Amino acid sequence: MPAASAETTQVAVVGGGPAGLMLSHLLARAGVESIVLEARTHEEIRTTHRAGILEDQAVRLLTETGVDSRVRSLGDEHAGIDLRFAGESHPLDFRELVGATVTLYPQNEVFVDLAAARARDGGDVRFGWTVTALADLETERPRLTCTDAEGAEHEIVADVIVGADGSRSLCRRAVDGAQDYRTSYPFAWFGILAEAEKSAAELIYTNSPHGFALISQRSETVQRMYFQCDPEEDVADWSEDRIWAELQRRVAGADGFELATGPILEKTVLPFRSFVREPLRHGRLLLAGDAGHTVPPTGAKGLNLALADVALLGEALAAWYVDGDARPVDAYSDQALRRIWRAQHFSSWMTAMLHTPPDADPFSIRRALGELETLTSSPGGMQHLAECYTGWPNT
Amino acid sequence: MPAASAETTQVAVVGGGPAGLMLSHLLARAGVESIVLEARTHEEIRTTHRAGILEDQAVRLLTETGVDSRVRSLGDEHAGIDLRFAGESHPLDFRELVGATVTLYPQNEVFVDLAAARARDGGDVRFGWTVTALADLETERPRLTCTDAEGAEHEIVADVIVGADGSRSLCRRAVDGAQDYRTSYPFAWFGILAEAEKSAAELIYTNSPHGFALISQRSETVQRMYFQCDPEEDVADWSEDRIWAELQRRVAGADGFELATGPILEKTVLPFRSFVREPLRHGRLLLAGDAGHTVPPTGAKGLNLALADVALLGEALAAWYVDGDARPVDAYSDQALRRIWRAQHFSSWMTAMLHTPPDADPFSIRRALGELETLTSSPGGMQHLAECYTGWPNT
Repeated sequence: MPAASAETTQVAVVGGGPAGLMLSHLLARAGVESIVLEARTHEEIRTTHRAGILEDQAVRLLTETGVDSRVRSLGDEHAGIDLRFAGESHPLDFRELVGATVTLYPQNEVFVDLAAARARDGGDVRFGWTVTALADLETERPRLTCTDAEGAEHEIVADVIVGADGSRSLCRRAVDGAQDYRTSYPFAWFGILAEAEKSAAELIYTNSPHGFALISQRSETVQRMYFQCDPEEDVADWSEDRIWAELQRRVAGADGFELATGPILEKTVLPFRSFVREPLRHGRLLLAGDAGHTVPPTGAKGLNLALADVALLGEALAAWYVDGDARPVDAYSDQALRRIWRAQHFSSWMTAMLHTPPDADPFSIRRALGELETLTSSPGGMQHLAECYTGWPNT
Repeated sequence: MPAASAETTQVAVVGGGPAGLMLSHLLARAGVESIVLEARTHEEIRTTHRAGILEDQAVRLLTETGVDSRVRSLGDEHAGIDLRFAGESHPLDFRELVGATVTLYPQNEVFVDLAAARARDGGDVRFGWTVTALADLETERPRLTCTDAEGAEHEIVADVIVGADGSRSLCRRAVDGAQDYRTSYPFAWFGILAEAEKSAAELIYTNSPHGFALISQRSETVQRMYFQCDPEEDVADWSEDRIWAELQRRVAGADGFELATGPILEKTVLPFRSFVREPLRHGRLLLAGDAGHTVPPTGAKGLNLALADVALLGEALAAWYVDGDARPVDAYSDQALRRIWRAQHFSSWMTAMLHTPPDADPFSIRRALGELETLTSSPGGMQHLAECYTGWPNT
């Protein structure tokens, strides 16, 4: 039984990243009340640099719900990518192939925009609030206990709890007996943020004899780049010179392509894993975004999947509250999982095709080059990759 | 030095399967003389049942060189395949997707037609002749020793030796220092020939929780089917009832699909491996077909690759003899390898997507279903698969 002092709300959202905030925003627009609880501070999330490639439908979701003024002015629309292998560039023009584009706009900026929209609309978003336990998930009044920024304990009772609390999700761990699918990779990404000119207008995904590299952009003066590394790599072992030499040799080719270099502002090793929880619902607990699934960064699906989850869930909860129709909530897990498994496939595929595992046999290395050649010389193949990269409709 | 008694010819072709015979046929049409040496008898090759799916360009090669009367009347043109998974059928219409078809016509029938054409044209094809050694490959007069059907030893001196002697190629093994790429698979195919009605008009490739199955046809009354098995499987352990039960459960689905059954005429376990030799040339020795590369049977590329190799090689040798232009011969290995690696990729891809390795983790199994779903709901994806299946031009 909830304590007499418990607060009540309709939807308790655990996690105030882009998924949790967008859900709260969508619910508010449908007249559904929510409380968002986020353990980190606004400052902490805002200043953690995260990459971001938004699919058209993610940009459309931001636009249609009035959170688009900054993404429209600051986002950088990309009409394609470059697949580079055997030292040669193979541009893919998404606009021409599938009539869609993507937008480079960092995930932490999406967070800033959504947090501002929630603040503007009087949303109840509590930063520094840590959820410690969930209970009564199989009843009609699930509840959670949490600690506020000052360390005081609180209890919240809701109709529904949504776990949008990221890959280390407490909400997910509160459920027993579900099926977790996971795989790991024998490599990670070494990511840098560098003060340098753009080396290319759009992203370059490179398969090289020395391993994968991704040349990305952030602004006219700051760039983001990554290269495949050992998961145990220590960033302290990598001087600026060593990093630039490694990146240069991975993009080198007969065309003489070279990266524009500059001071390195940040170095990080990004973990690489694939994970899916099935189902995404347990009684009155629903999982969304990284809490329910993680993809490796190749293919840039993480943020897009999270926004697609909450777009579906926001509509489903609105149907339940506004029309009394429970079917969309019941269908949420299956429907979201269809898209999630497509993205899992795409992310694994891009990873396998572009990376070289440390123990790769010569056959696999040549086979991947055969695949890249087959793909880039095939109109259907390029269209297929473009469809996957620019995203699937929420069906 | 060759013995004084050595025979001479322009091109000595080791291996009288479809690749060797087609090459000899093409050379004769260009006025180039050849001797074909084949260890097996005509009867032995003719009666070894082999499947066969001919790409349009293989049929065109047979047509353009006058070996098409039987394939035109007995071959069964297929406009597509069915990809079946999660118990549902997903037809792919190649004609609609890429304007091409394939033709079901067994490999041993291609052999019969080519052997008849060589006999009709007075070609020098020696069945029961076993090549025992090659020598002087790096000179302008390479030679080989061989034993005829009666056991007498002979020596043949040529300008060029072509190794078209299959996957256990003696010719390939005569060369040191080349690069061999290979990979093995933790499964094989259990193949049957059964007296039964057709269960479907075109091939069905099935991914099932119990492993892969392929439903193929041979005639109105005899069918060919395969299912993934352990490479060490003993056909003696499989009764007719057990085989049919295994096949039925692999194709079973909500649509109630069932195979038409009947007496099983033949049972075999087909090995599964991928192999490529690079380069395909060593001095005056050139490799073609299975001697240079092997693909797993998923995707039906083996015979098509072999015919594409000799189409290229026939033209190259004709250019050398007729026009004195050595460049096409010099380009042969690189040019053939481009197509070979595409086919290696395609065969590995079809294999990975449709089979379930015995130690597969649940993530990989679900990911493959995600891939099949992504592919069959993507116009570009289906077009890509259709392009690969129906074959690439010889560029």
